[in-house]
Amino acid sequence: MSDDQDLIQGYDPRTGEPAGAPLPATPAGDVDRLVAAAEAAFPAWQAFDRATALDAIAAALDEHVDELVALADRETALGVPRLSGEVARTTGQLRLFSELLRDGSYQDTVVEHAEGARPDLRRVNRPLGPVAVFAASNFPFAFSVAGGDTASALAAGCPVIVKAHEAHPRTSLRTAELTREALRGAGAPDGVFDIVFGFTAGVHLVKHPGITGVGFTGSTRGGLALAKLCAERPTPIPFYGELGSVNPVFVLPGAVAQRSAEIASGYAGSLTLGSGQFCTNPGIMFVPEDAALLSAIAEAVSGTVGTPMLAERIHSGLVAGLEEMAAVPGVRLLAEGKPGEGPWAPTPAVYAVSAEDFRAHAERLREEHFGPVGIVVTYQPGNDSEPSHLLKLGSVGEGHLTSTIHLDADDDADVAAARDLLPQLERIAGRIVFNGWPTGVAVTHAQHHGGPFPATTAPAHTSVGAAAIRRWLVPVVYQDAPAALLPEPLRDSEGTKK
Amino acid sequence: MSDDQDLIQGYDPRTGEPAGAPLPATPAGDVDRLVAAAEAAFPAWQAFDRATALDAIAAALDEHVDELVALADRETALGVPRLSGEVARTTGQLRLFSELLRDGSYQDTVVEHAEGARPDLRRVNRPLGPVAVFAASNFPFAFSVAGGDTASALAAGCPVIVKAHEAHPRTSLRTAELTREALRGAGAPDGVFDIVFGFTAGVHLVKHPGITGVGFTGSTRGGLALAKLCAERPTPIPFYGELGSVNPVFVLPGAVAQRSAEIASGYAGSLTLGSGQFCTNPGIMFVPEDAALLSAIAEAVSGTVGTPMLAERIHSGLVAGLEEMAAVPGVRLLAEGKPGEGPWAPTPAVYAVSAEDFRAHAERLREEHFGPVGIVVTYQPGNDSEPSHLLKLGSVGEGHLTSTIHLDADDDADVAAARDLLPQLERIAGRIVFNGWPTGVAVTHAQHHGGPFPATTAPAHTSVGAAAIRRWLVPVVYQDAPAALLPEPLRDSEGTKK
Repeated sequence: MSDDQDLIQGYDPRTGEPAGAPLPATPAGDVDRLVAAAEAAFPAWQAFDRATALDAIAAALDEHVDELVALADRETALGVPRLSGEVARTTGQLRLFSELLRDGSYQDTVVEHAEGARPDLRRVNRPLGPVAVFAASNFPFAFSVAGGDTASALAAGCPVIVKAHEAHPRTSLRTAELTREALRGAGAPDGVFDIVFGFTAGVHLVKHPGITGVGFTGSTRGGLALAKLCAERPTPIPFYGELGSVNPVFVLPGAVAQRSAEIASGYAGSLTLGSGQFCTNPGIMFVPEDAALLSAIAEAVSGTVGTPMLAERIHSGLVAGLEEMAAVPGVRLLAEGKPGEGPWAPTPAVYAVSAEDFRAHAERLREEHFGPVGIVVTYQPGNDSEPSHLLKLGSVGEGHLTSTIHLDADDDADVAAARDLLPQLERIAGRIVFNGWPTGVAVTHAQHHGGPFPATTAPAHTSVGAAAIRRWLVPVVYQDAPAALLPEPLRDSEGTKK
Repeated sequence: MSDDQDLIQGYDPRTGEPAGAPLPATPAGDVDRLVAAAEAAFPAWQAFDRATALDAIAAALDEHVDELVALADRETALGVPRLSGEVARTTGQLRLFSELLRDGSYQDTVVEHAEGARPDLRRVNRPLGPVAVFAASNFPFAFSVAGGDTASALAAGCPVIVKAHEAHPRTSLRTAELTREALRGAGAPDGVFDIVFGFTAGVHLVKHPGITGVGFTGSTRGGLALAKLCAERPTPIPFYGELGSVNPVFVLPGAVAQRSAEIASGYAGSLTLGSGQFCTNPGIMFVPEDAALLSAIAEAVSGTVGTPMLAERIHSGLVAGLEEMAAVPGVRLLAEGKPGEGPWAPTPAVYAVSAEDFRAHAERLREEHFGPVGIVVTYQPGNDSEPSHLLKLGSVGEGHLTSTIHLDADDDADVAAARDLLPQLERIAGRIVFNGWPTGVAVTHAQHHGGPFPATTAPAHTSVGAAAIRRWLVPVVYQDAPAALLPEPLRDSEGTKK
């Protein structure tokens, strides 16, 4: 979240200059009007053919992909290939939810006929009501205006009001226009989707009595502030926040023996992708003390080149955080990439520290640094500097979106070490990656993008994949309802579960 | 929650005299020791045959039913038939969860093999960790030491520490002893279940870093205080609170024409059951202005007899609340039952008010009165005093565990009126009862005992029925895991979902 302001100005990260004319922040009265419209649209949206409407949004975004990518590239400098891919991911998400709606399983219906003293009970999921979605800086499409939170909430039957991210206002506005037009074209009720701009509008939205839930992807500080607002309302509402994650990676000795060059290059690639601006960026990597591996990592990192970050604030935050990290006793610079061009392009960097020094300063060293920067912790296999021991001490922190193990699956010692790690990793991360890298989150039915606090504020929920719809649903059970009054999915003609 | 005290003294509600010797409150050091033991037991409990252990607890409670009922009757005065039934319900709950464990569906596994660029992803539910359960006053067995929260959390794989309710310390202690012994006899790891006594011990438990979630059934005030503690921890944890509910009942004109005497007697019975100490007590009933119905209600209520409440504090709270309600303009006493015996036995009472006066003073009149007391709101069918209109005005409040409709299912006007009510009732209540009464909650797979705030603090979750286990589970997804490292339910030999 940024400071309050009347005008929302996007910037070109390649130059630091304004990108396009500023947009006005949304006044409180307009927010009230949008929430009232969302509330009015709610009954009709519950009854609407939402699958068709989601498909229409996807089609509209696909049709305008070049225009959207050009707008976003100017405001984010993430580049045309990545942004084109992100639009495809976004429309893929919308279509995943339209499939889910047609399949119907998201309603989680359970029908139990009366038996003895037990009444007839039939349970079905219902949408919460109008919800607020806070867009993320680092995904101008997939976690923004028509991104996963919006798609899953609309699919659930919840009208959505998005709070645009200040890093890409023009992209947000255009995406919102296309989304609104597509919904209107599909015959959806007016008011089922809209957008607001500015910090004050966002706070007003979260406190509005008509809002019944909030989705958020962003910083721990901003997320905690919004979580507090949600909890302190006269009627508290669920807050689904995805905050910070350091995504520890554990490289086991067999993997080093098998493929140290591949690990080094994979790490450098994952660490610097998108200027390191991913919630799944591999911030801490534990490796055996091995000169060849460290030198391979140093070489791979030296070959990377900095690219502009999304905002001046993000760049300056990274620089300040790195100064703090470099000042921790025992931390040394292992390698740097080449400086990027423009005012907000950091130099990729990897630091190294021994497991002993890491343990002594773990609280400072496991801070998230949002950017192309990581720390490599070297351990001695077979003694108490081993990752499983560090984990038992809690030094890796309590909550991450992901954790990664690199092992040689044919090496008995690696497999045994992984077995020792797994029960602990299951407690601190929502996804465990083997022999890969945490960046890149498949949007599927099995996916879980979540984790214990601070990774998320609601660890049972995911913000990526089909199960993301569950955040916006609550069950209702009908007891002994006359057939004529049963919702359609609960009627006896439908398939019953259990 | 009561004030802090070093000794926990139970009382006989029939006399107001102490029941048995007091028990010492649990010192903070002992709480720490129990949490450490729960944490140590967690890995072994995850791997344990928990179904057999739950069955062993159920068998032990059944075997000691007479002793338990005698203890509880002395401390609660709820009577032998009700308490015997409640032990059976409690052991039935334990067995429901052992069945669920054997069936395995609670793990919600989703297996997706790699396809194109998509990795192999396999998701499974995992237990949160050690949890705290706050026992309720009004269900000394079913919502207490070995009640639904404990059974569902143990089933999930979470060690449990119960905070006993002060209204029945001796019953709690004996139930805990039997539970511990049964677990030990089944070979469960030490520390997987224990109990603490006293307000201070409960607060210490909730703030303890080793506790990963809290279940609570009780007052709105107490629940909100604990919810705040959970949210303000350095690592916030989920708080599943069931707080207050007024459970509105809507009687439609056709139902009155069809069976007004049955409605009157059913209402009086539901209202006064267990001295009205149920979270599903029908606190507000909307009826057509009909002299015969009102007179039938008055007659039915006059035939009821007061019974002792669980605690002096509960009784005095009810008396104070009724004085406030009776002072609201337009509210009149419709009928009273016969006074009960003993110092804590209230006189059942029903008040009446017109829909107009209700609307004018709705905030005061929809307060929950925990006891055998209700208010009947009379409306004129066909004008804006109708329930659906009152609901649109929000005057019935935002969150209830249940809502009830009485209608003649063959009466077109009733069916139409119910259709108008239902979309609104789905938003304010987790269970919609037709032509019955909200007290009595079947423990089944379809059941949902939850609702919007203040009914619960987590409206997507239930505290009764098989789905209650979901509160204690979080998903973990394995990405590209070697077969040897996959958890057993995710291996290819197992059935796959999706």
